[in-house]
Amino acid sequence: MGEFELIRRHFQRAAGGPSVVLGIGDDCALLQPSPGHQLAISSDMLVEGRHFFPDVNPQALGHKALAVNLSDLAAMGARPLGFTLALALPQADDAWLRGFSDGLLALADAHACPLVGGDTTRGPLNLCITVFGEVLPGRALRRDAARPGDDLYLSGRTGEARLALEQQRGTPWALTAMPDDGCRERLERPTPRLALGRALAGLDGWEGRAPAAIDLSDGLAGDLGHILRASGVGAEIRLADLPVAPPLRGLPEAQRLECLLHGGDDYELLFTAPPSARGAIAAAGTASQAPVQRIGVITPQTGLRLIRANGETEALIATGFDHFT
Amino acid sequence: MGEFELIRRHFQRAAGGPSVVLGIGDDCALLQPSPGHQLAISSDMLVEGRHFFPDVNPQALGHKALAVNLSDLAAMGARPLGFTLALALPQADDAWLRGFSDGLLALADAHACPLVGGDTTRGPLNLCITVFGEVLPGRALRRDAARPGDDLYLSGRTGEARLALEQQRGTPWALTAMPDDGCRERLERPTPRLALGRALAGLDGWEGRAPAAIDLSDGLAGDLGHILRASGVGAEIRLADLPVAPPLRGLPEAQRLECLLHGGDDYELLFTAPPSARGAIAAAGTASQAPVQRIGVITPQTGLRLIRANGETEALIATGFDHFT
Repeated sequence: MGEFELIRRHFQRAAGGPSVVLGIGDDCALLQPSPGHQLAISSDMLVEGRHFFPDVNPQALGHKALAVNLSDLAAMGARPLGFTLALALPQADDAWLRGFSDGLLALADAHACPLVGGDTTRGPLNLCITVFGEVLPGRALRRDAARPGDDLYLSGRTGEARLALEQQRGTPWALTAMPDDGCRERLERPTPRLALGRALAGLDGWEGRAPAAIDLSDGLAGDLGHILRASGVGAEIRLADLPVAPPLRGLPEAQRLECLLHGGDDYELLFTAPPSARGAIAAAGTASQAPVQRIGVITPQTGLRLIRANGETEALIATGFDHFT
Repeated sequence: MGEFELIRRHFQRAAGGPSVVLGIGDDCALLQPSPGHQLAISSDMLVEGRHFFPDVNPQALGHKALAVNLSDLAAMGARPLGFTLALALPQADDAWLRGFSDGLLALADAHACPLVGGDTTRGPLNLCITVFGEVLPGRALRRDAARPGDDLYLSGRTGEARLALEQQRGTPWALTAMPDDGCRERLERPTPRLALGRALAGLDGWEGRAPAAIDLSDGLAGDLGHILRASGVGAEIRLADLPVAPPLRGLPEAQRLECLLHGGDDYELLFTAPPSARGAIAAAGTASQAPVQRIGVITPQTGLRLIRANGETEALIATGFDHFT
């Protein structure tokens, strides 16, 4: 199977999407964004042994590679237009490629985000996806938009993916909890919160500034830190208001907090909006079928603090995973 | 040096470009294309040991990684808007990164194509660039637009990069030619033909269909094959009309033809247009300071044929390099 046959067999589809003028097979793909919209772009690279295990299910890998990119569009409030895939493969393994493209393209179809181009080469397994979306000017959910007094919101809940990862690694404390298919699904097949992101960028019934938002890939505290630094503010998280999934409830407290606050791979949205937007935020959550919870508040005082149920406060380190430290 | 310090030190610039609403540092970059334009997108992945030698000059690598992507925009007739870079590095080597970003960003500046985002991770050295441009609807230079009777044009000349590559490899026939800085420059620092591509997409003074075009990365014959298959036509190349760079003139004929027709890494434009567009094509070449030569003709008969100076005809194989065969 040569390079072009590989692309034709596993990645090329007759269909495009309403925005695709020209897909796979020319020097460039051509997209037609909606008039007046801005283009939102994100790129993520996944490396074997670093972002996934060598024996990963290829279908799950295909799903996740696109999901983490779509999650960035969600965090900007953008509507997907399409994506490119650059793929370095040690060899052209037909069964592996079939699984990978099945997982990838099923998620692409579910979000009307067609594969429009890319590159294929030989090399150590490496996937680079770049995703394109569109958003109306002034409505993107930027990290620098948080203001003191804003409520801090979380979609869904955090920590399950981390618990599943530690169980796969055989970490003793994680093995004290029963393996849970829900946790494993969260780790392997995250669901990007696209509908919620778009609802927040629209926010029917509330005409104020667009919310600040980020998607959670490196842990709640660390990713919140990006919003705090970009906006020049601080935050308090109320521990009692953090949703805790059932499999995490039996963990020792330190490990439960590690999963909730520093877990990683959550792909939930963390966002802020003023109290006047509470009704609109609740409506956005309902309309997009995303559970949305107020978990804290943005403060003029910089830094990140955790408020325990008994009122005690402790400082949290608001930095996340770093590939080079 | 951590991941964010690495990005800040080597890749983040205060400046953006006229189309950049939001650059590095959020979940997505935001671009504002010109009203009514289509978006042209291309992505290329470069792997150590496959696309470049491990001891490559990092400045040349930075230049080339972007140049090969800009060349795809040129082949579509698009104006650059910006690009993303995803980078897997075995370690954060400050001196290497400084050279790489110098070469990369100098070319980006020269073409007003700012770096707007991307990803950094640890892993075997791998660079994935995705580039974005814009073009007016109906004016993109597509591979499927060649028609029988069209002239076949080449910008610049082919073969020098291949000669330099074979000299670096120590291939005996290549060592019969003197090493030439011009050839090495063609291999290591190709010049994307952006001005020519845009001129062809505009074609002042000629109102017909947009030319068909492709950029030459895998050899003239193989890349021409993509145009022929997409357009359902054939072509004849007149050998006497192919420009030959001085360092290639002393090579044995078989190797000279190999360099000219199957060399690779040329990053010239190969394009077709009807004879009625000859004046406009010549003007486009002059305006963009690109030497442009008519080297053959598109035929209704499929396949690719080489016409020698004595009138003899031979069939050429119109397929290029394949990473998996």
